[in-house]
Amino acid sequence: MRNQFINDLRQLNIQLLKMGAMVQDIIEVSIQALAKQDLEMAKKVYEMDDAIDELELTIEQECMKLLALQQPMAKDLRVVGTIMKIITDLERMGDHAVNIAKITLTIGNEPLIKPLIDIPKMARLSEDMVRKSLDAFMKEDIYLAEEVALDDEAVDELYEAIYSELITMMIENPEIVKQATHLLFIGRYLERIADHATNIGERIIYMVTGERIEIN
Amino acid sequence: MRNQFINDLRQLNIQLLKMGAMVQDIIEVSIQALAKQDLEMAKKVYEMDDAIDELELTIEQECMKLLALQQPMAKDLRVVGTIMKIITDLERMGDHAVNIAKITLTIGNEPLIKPLIDIPKMARLSEDMVRKSLDAFMKEDIYLAEEVALDDEAVDELYEAIYSELITMMIENPEIVKQATHLLFIGRYLERIADHATNIGERIIYMVTGERIEIN
Repeated sequence: MRNQFINDLRQLNIQLLKMGAMVQDIIEVSIQALAKQDLEMAKKVYEMDDAIDELELTIEQECMKLLALQQPMAKDLRVVGTIMKIITDLERMGDHAVNIAKITLTIGNEPLIKPLIDIPKMARLSEDMVRKSLDAFMKEDIYLAEEVALDDEAVDELYEAIYSELITMMIENPEIVKQATHLLFIGRYLERIADHATNIGERIIYMVTGERIEIN
Repeated sequence: MRNQFINDLRQLNIQLLKMGAMVQDIIEVSIQALAKQDLEMAKKVYEMDDAIDELELTIEQECMKLLALQQPMAKDLRVVGTIMKIITDLERMGDHAVNIAKITLTIGNEPLIKPLIDIPKMARLSEDMVRKSLDAFMKEDIYLAEEVALDDEAVDELYEAIYSELITMMIENPEIVKQATHLLFIGRYLERIADHATNIGERIIYMVTGERIEIN
């Protein structure tokens, strides 16, 4: 029974890592599409998101089967619960990438009002947070999980910077209000993506220690 | 065993309804606080959210215990899975209400740039969607679940209207850019709240029919 559980869990972990990689990809592609104003690439984000949604469903069903058939207790139960929560967070990140792609399509070929610097930085940090949080899950490493929360602060600071910059630009030049608002939302979506990675970190700490904390 | 399951499920349903009521309340209070610029009320939203988070955790743990101890199959398994998804959506709605309260606190006592009409309308529609979606869950009523998706379209339309209005206002009067952006985000949060209610509707259809659909 216990061996079967460990075996099933190993399979789940592989799928979870795959989902994590897909989410890192979708974030990257959504921001690349924006930066290059590549509308075909932006459309690809929708397909990528469908694949993520499907994988979430598969993992979720595997988790529920495992719970029902193996009746794990205590920490094992927390591990499965954690996987179920992680996939929800990953899936939401995919949704935010779609939101970004949607805006890229709306902006279309209209020239960008500013060179993108902080937005790609936020994206890279977020991708890294996803990688790190799943790494922390695999290794049950609460210090790594806490590091994710620190990265989140850096993302928040970048968002604040983008926010101030765009507000100032809008006040000085009302013509750009529309696109500036679009970019503001993109910053916000990235900030949300990072929050989801932080949720994953908090979950892992709970999984390992059995104690709930809120890092930020 | 089956009787025990039904009994446990009944307890879960009661808690779920309670959580739904709390979420309707938090949406209402967050928008009332904004409309009245009542900062004390806005602070109350944070406490309300803590209570929602706690109840989510309780329900989640009950669900996992039930899965592990009763090993439900087929539809029973889907019901428990649905509850676990519903509480995640409800919890996220609470988070959005907090986001709204945060903005209300940021605006502080600065006079509102416009009378709030569509925003309270969106809030009321969203609250109604929450109520309706949980009603659909209890009655396993897929038609009611589909109705939630129709309401979501009305919310989306209101958001579009708010968006256009605020963009126009900003272009005409750049001084209000900051607050207009704040209100824009509030519209967006309400729109997200309604999306979560729609997620719940989709889940219920899956629970009842075993088939996945995406309504919007």
